[in-house]
Amino acid sequence: MKAQATPEQVKAVCDHIEQLGFRAHSLPGAQRTAIGITGNQGEVERGNLEELPGVAEVIRVSKAYKLASRDAKEDNTIIRFPGTDATIGGNDIAIVAGPCSIETREQAFTIAEKVAASGAQFFRGGAFKPRTSPYAFQGLGIEALQIMAEIRDAFGLRIITEAIDNESLELVVEYADVIQIGARNMQNYSLLKKAGKTRKPVLIKRGMSATLDEFLMSAEYVMSEGNYQVILCERGVRTFADHTRNTLDLSIVPAVQRLSHLPILVDPSHGTGKRNKVIPMARAGVAVGADGIMVEVHHEPEKAWSDGPQSIYPEQFASMMDELEQIAAVLHRRVPRGIHVEAATA
Amino acid sequence: MKAQATPEQVKAVCDHIEQLGFRAHSLPGAQRTAIGITGNQGEVERGNLEELPGVAEVIRVSKAYKLASRDAKEDNTIIRFPGTDATIGGNDIAIVAGPCSIETREQAFTIAEKVAASGAQFFRGGAFKPRTSPYAFQGLGIEALQIMAEIRDAFGLRIITEAIDNESLELVVEYADVIQIGARNMQNYSLLKKAGKTRKPVLIKRGMSATLDEFLMSAEYVMSEGNYQVILCERGVRTFADHTRNTLDLSIVPAVQRLSHLPILVDPSHGTGKRNKVIPMARAGVAVGADGIMVEVHHEPEKAWSDGPQSIYPEQFASMMDELEQIAAVLHRRVPRGIHVEAATA
Amino acid sequence: MKAQATPEQVKAVCDHIEQLGFRAHSLPGAQRTAIGITGNQGEVERGNLEELPGVAEVIRVSKAYKLASRDAKEDNTIIRFPGTDATIGGNDIAIVAGPCSIETREQAFTIAEKVAASGAQFFRGGAFKPRTSPYAFQGLGIEALQIMAEIRDAFGLRIITEAIDNESLELVVEYADVIQIGARNMQNYSLLKKAGKTRKPVLIKRGMSATLDEFLMSAEYVMSEGNYQVILCERGVRTFADHTRNTLDLSIVPAVQRLSHLPILVDPSHGTGKRNKVIPMARAGVAVGADGIMVEVHHEPEKAWSDGPQSIYPEQFASMMDELEQIAAVLHRRVPRGIHVEAATA
Amino acid sequence: MKAQATPEQVKAVCDHIEQLGFRAHSLPGAQRTAIGITGNQGEVERGNLEELPGVAEVIRVSKAYKLASRDAKEDNTIIRFPGTDATIGGNDIAIVAGPCSIETREQAFTIAEKVAASGAQFFRGGAFKPRTSPYAFQGLGIEALQIMAEIRDAFGLRIITEAIDNESLELVVEYADVIQIGARNMQNYSLLKKAGKTRKPVLIKRGMSATLDEFLMSAEYVMSEGNYQVILCERGVRTFADHTRNTLDLSIVPAVQRLSHLPILVDPSHGTGKRNKVIPMARAGVAVGADGIMVEVHHEPEKAWSDGPQSIYPEQFASMMDELEQIAAVLHRRVPRGIHVEAATA
Repeated sequence: MKAQATPEQVKAVCDHIEQLGFRAHSLPGAQRTAIGITGNQGEVERGNLEELPGVAEVIRVSKAYKLASRDAKEDNTIIRFPGTDATIGGNDIAIVAGPCSIETREQAFTIAEKVAASGAQFFRGGAFKPRTSPYAFQGLGIEALQIMAEIRDAFGLRIITEAIDNESLELVVEYADVIQIGARNMQNYSLLKKAGKTRKPVLIKRGMSATLDEFLMSAEYVMSEGNYQVILCERGVRTFADHTRNTLDLSIVPAVQRLSHLPILVDPSHGTGKRNKVIPMARAGVAVGADGIMVEVHHEPEKAWSDGPQSIYPEQFASMMDELEQIAAVLHRRVPRGIHVEAATA
Repeated sequence: MKAQATPEQVKAVCDHIEQLGFRAHSLPGAQRTAIGITGNQGEVERGNLEELPGVAEVIRVSKAYKLASRDAKEDNTIIRFPGTDATIGGNDIAIVAGPCSIETREQAFTIAEKVAASGAQFFRGGAFKPRTSPYAFQGLGIEALQIMAEIRDAFGLRIITEAIDNESLELVVEYADVIQIGARNMQNYSLLKKAGKTRKPVLIKRGMSATLDEFLMSAEYVMSEGNYQVILCERGVRTFADHTRNTLDLSIVPAVQRLSHLPILVDPSHGTGKRNKVIPMARAGVAVGADGIMVEVHHEPEKAWSDGPQSIYPEQFASMMDELEQIAAVLHRRVPRGIHVEAATA
Repeated sequence: MKAQATPEQVKAVCDHIEQLGFRAHSLPGAQRTAIGITGNQGEVERGNLEELPGVAEVIRVSKAYKLASRDAKEDNTIIRFPGTDATIGGNDIAIVAGPCSIETREQAFTIAEKVAASGAQFFRGGAFKPRTSPYAFQGLGIEALQIMAEIRDAFGLRIITEAIDNESLELVVEYADVIQIGARNMQNYSLLKKAGKTRKPVLIKRGMSATLDEFLMSAEYVMSEGNYQVILCERGVRTFADHTRNTLDLSIVPAVQRLSHLPILVDPSHGTGKRNKVIPMARAGVAVGADGIMVEVHHEPEKAWSDGPQSIYPEQFASMMDELEQIAAVLHRRVPRGIHVEAATA
Repeated sequence: MKAQATPEQVKAVCDHIEQLGFRAHSLPGAQRTAIGITGNQGEVERGNLEELPGVAEVIRVSKAYKLASRDAKEDNTIIRFPGTDATIGGNDIAIVAGPCSIETREQAFTIAEKVAASGAQFFRGGAFKPRTSPYAFQGLGIEALQIMAEIRDAFGLRIITEAIDNESLELVVEYADVIQIGARNMQNYSLLKKAGKTRKPVLIKRGMSATLDEFLMSAEYVMSEGNYQVILCERGVRTFADHTRNTLDLSIVPAVQRLSHLPILVDPSHGTGKRNKVIPMARAGVAVGADGIMVEVHHEPEKAWSDGPQSIYPEQFASMMDELEQIAAVLHRRVPRGIHVEAATA
């Protein structure tokens, strides 16, 4: 309440709160009176209160996400991949590597073979690409999914790829191991709900201007439909800074880990947009405590159909793996080298 | 190129550009050499060039949008509504008013009657609501669309409402006069393309962290499918500033008008999130030269199911109309009072 | 407090607060317990509390500024200029115009004559320039101040110019009517305190990333030294948006007016950095309710030594004055035309 | 140039550029003509060109900083501290630790003893504090400097402390080993020039909204006065993100190292503002390749007079040193343990 608020105004606000079905607690202070609200299950619309006579400001205290919160589940969520030893969210650091886009069967296999040889457990590759320009390459679609399914058979790598709408989601569920929701779709709630109705793990990339709360609320959308296998991924946010394409916000890793039980990866490729900054930021991602690294690798980035400049070479990926392994050890974590697939499911 | 770049490095970069099918122009300067690229139809991947030896920086000069550009069409686009005298993008200022969400038939009609009486030509109301929380009210859906269709019949008001996915888009096309694409879906390219396949005007709200280029590229997505009736809407961007819910970026109005022929509205309700700032910013929107104002009005905002705090009262709307009319006159523009509907189509 | 917090933890936090000399109020809620703190004069260090066992979050409720607040003084502050009819903060809109830098006596007089003829009451011109590059023109210094003093004598215009350190502040106090503190120095507290020890009005430009609170706290620094004549000025903040040099945040005008009694001007020249956006944003500034407009004018901007591209021509200034006058009238305010100086003080 | 620009307009722009004393290079492209400008020593005012008929956009290519650039000096700058083996910018990682503010002789000695015992080579402590509120503790001033000089004698630690104006700068030069310029003063050019006239190393903290260019230009201000011993320090920038006090932008470390020869440190205390995020981000800072870490340590943070919540405990500092040492080893760098001071100078 404002300093000049009258006792009548304080009472009117309390009455209003009670009418809304909540409890109001009046707290007289040295200079002004504060009023606490409890008993609300969801969010109270702050603006109406703010407009009542004598009110100075309305401040929200409790969080709207429930299932994504450590209040609901104290232990870390560990995502498992049946028939393999791969996990995301446990002690192992998940390494996800591959090209921005699947361009040809040959390109995809060349890169997959190399990243598998260096020990990656997960393969990423775009089949459906959300591009800023309608005139840019939009992905190979189902053909790319089929190529990636063959890559899983050939190298054991588990497949992560993006769904951009309901149609592509159905296909991704059929062919891939993890459904990726891109940054531009982080608040495409219709898509999130569809993903929540599947039983495949969902990786949600942080939107370019998403707060921590909004990020966790997008996870909550998936979880509220019954799919609790959610993985978060920091990929840079939009700021005034112009030396990188986005500003990779590594501090969100410990912030997520404090509030939520969900695993969180870091994507230094989109996070920086520049090859020469990818490996330093990947190292920083493991050092800050991320549960995995998602990185773009291309053997001929200068010929890549998209995002070439931020893709690292396979040899760079190999030496990066060595560095990440050593840094993980400092945190008593492990970078597993290669995936073990049971005969029956291979 | 870097200051220390050798002639061989300059030549290598030029050769690389020519191999990509473009033309390279070497420009020796006092301190360093610049290389110009022409002949490209779309964007050149800047990163690969940036990684070549001797290269200091790659700078993009031309724009990727074509149809949305004044280069393609010099005259302003004027959206017309058959059977009425309403326009968006001409000399008249379009006033769009209504509640955040359609809650009940009675609520919607009460508000519609009042805003029509004050002279609004367009009615807005949410049927499908993209809410941050999965537990919040998500809209009445088709029932809301039916109520708005009745409002059109009763008051002549043209209807603007948001589509959030393919299913809702099909319904919105059937019932409404303008399809709104919300800020969270500004880069939902799948939805934009669907909207581009319809023949109803599409209003695109600026994403919370969208640059001017990205905003126009979203318009380009719709136009590239053959639907040229696109309206832009500034509704605030996300910044560090915490005194409003978003930072309403009014300077994008003259910026859009310089580069594009498309009309642009301003939404001071979402742009500020606070009732006491809506009218001042609406006045500023008309003063800066916007083609219209989109504003939330509710007769009982303290009971509104969503966004109550940013909704103005009908009486405030009435006096705002008077102010906007006077400010429009300073710019030799008109705030039409009421919509005229031809008998045949009414 | 966290949902799992024990009663012992709640008690420990309360005890800790009491030890700090404040009062603690325990507020048990449906899901968690909130604890209110009152009795503090200044800010409580939130972090220490946040680290206590069981604490979820610490939220600040009251403000640290006192003298700048409407709680301290309900009526608007009106700055008067002895011997003239000019005011800032009253019903009149203050128009401040002039070149970015004083370059020569002739340049300054040419511009001053033109803006005076169009009715400006205040003349701005840089004598000491804070430039990003050490190699750029840094201002004429005292020579510029002397030229501006002559301009006051010749045209009656009151002089506003920037001080960048203690030395220049002493000179500015001697020659000018208003001491300007630039955006880069908004948190140069040493300089603010010096300005607070003078008895000349102080115009503080908002820092490029200053929150509303920080902005008012900078005013508080000046006021806490006994100088209550403070004028605020919005000049654009730094965001991701790249279509203007800065993002002019007009919504801070009603926000300041709600919380503080101090007048606030808008500077559309620095706020946009582009001539073609200056006048639209000046109109918007008056429409939103600002107490004045500060604008750069140059008769030969293409030859200006600094900021030419954002300077408008004198003829543009003249027609802008007409537009501003008409918009001010809509808000029942006046754009005075010319300054009246009493014979004795002229 | 715009697509519709006439040959006459192109020629007019070229002539204008030549009149400014530069060279113009016309570059006809498929859709439009570009014009390159060379021969300029400093920045060309882009705005005037942008206003010429037919001009679409003006884009800057070369950089304004010279002395700070790798173009001027290819090898890394290594700052040495006479009479000791401490360096900043070489292979060793510089560890700077101490309280936010010097509160008492006992407090400072207690902390200094502990951080020295853990191997820090540099001691930080505020004597002159730039505080947002004029009512907050402003530092002990010269008394704090004297205490830190004693700490240097007692433990060998080199002293880094902030100067906030000319008066404090003179004292800091006398007592300390490194002059710190705080984030709020990064563009206080008067203070930077003063620091450039001294012969003590200068540590410049990045401003809260400073671009990479502006950061390096602030270094250029110091260097242009003849003092080449400049150290940069990333301490977080201001963004929309609200889970940390600032957003620590680690990608600026490789960005600075690519463009400049100057060393760069990372400050995770101010960069996050929360104790539980300091150590993860310190690890990330070393992993990304920073030349040092600057961290706040307090044995009783809950009683600290400022910034307690972001200070780590001495025991946390000790274990952090072990982690940083191991991560540094992955990058083939060393975290030296303790400083060796020559007898003569001790």
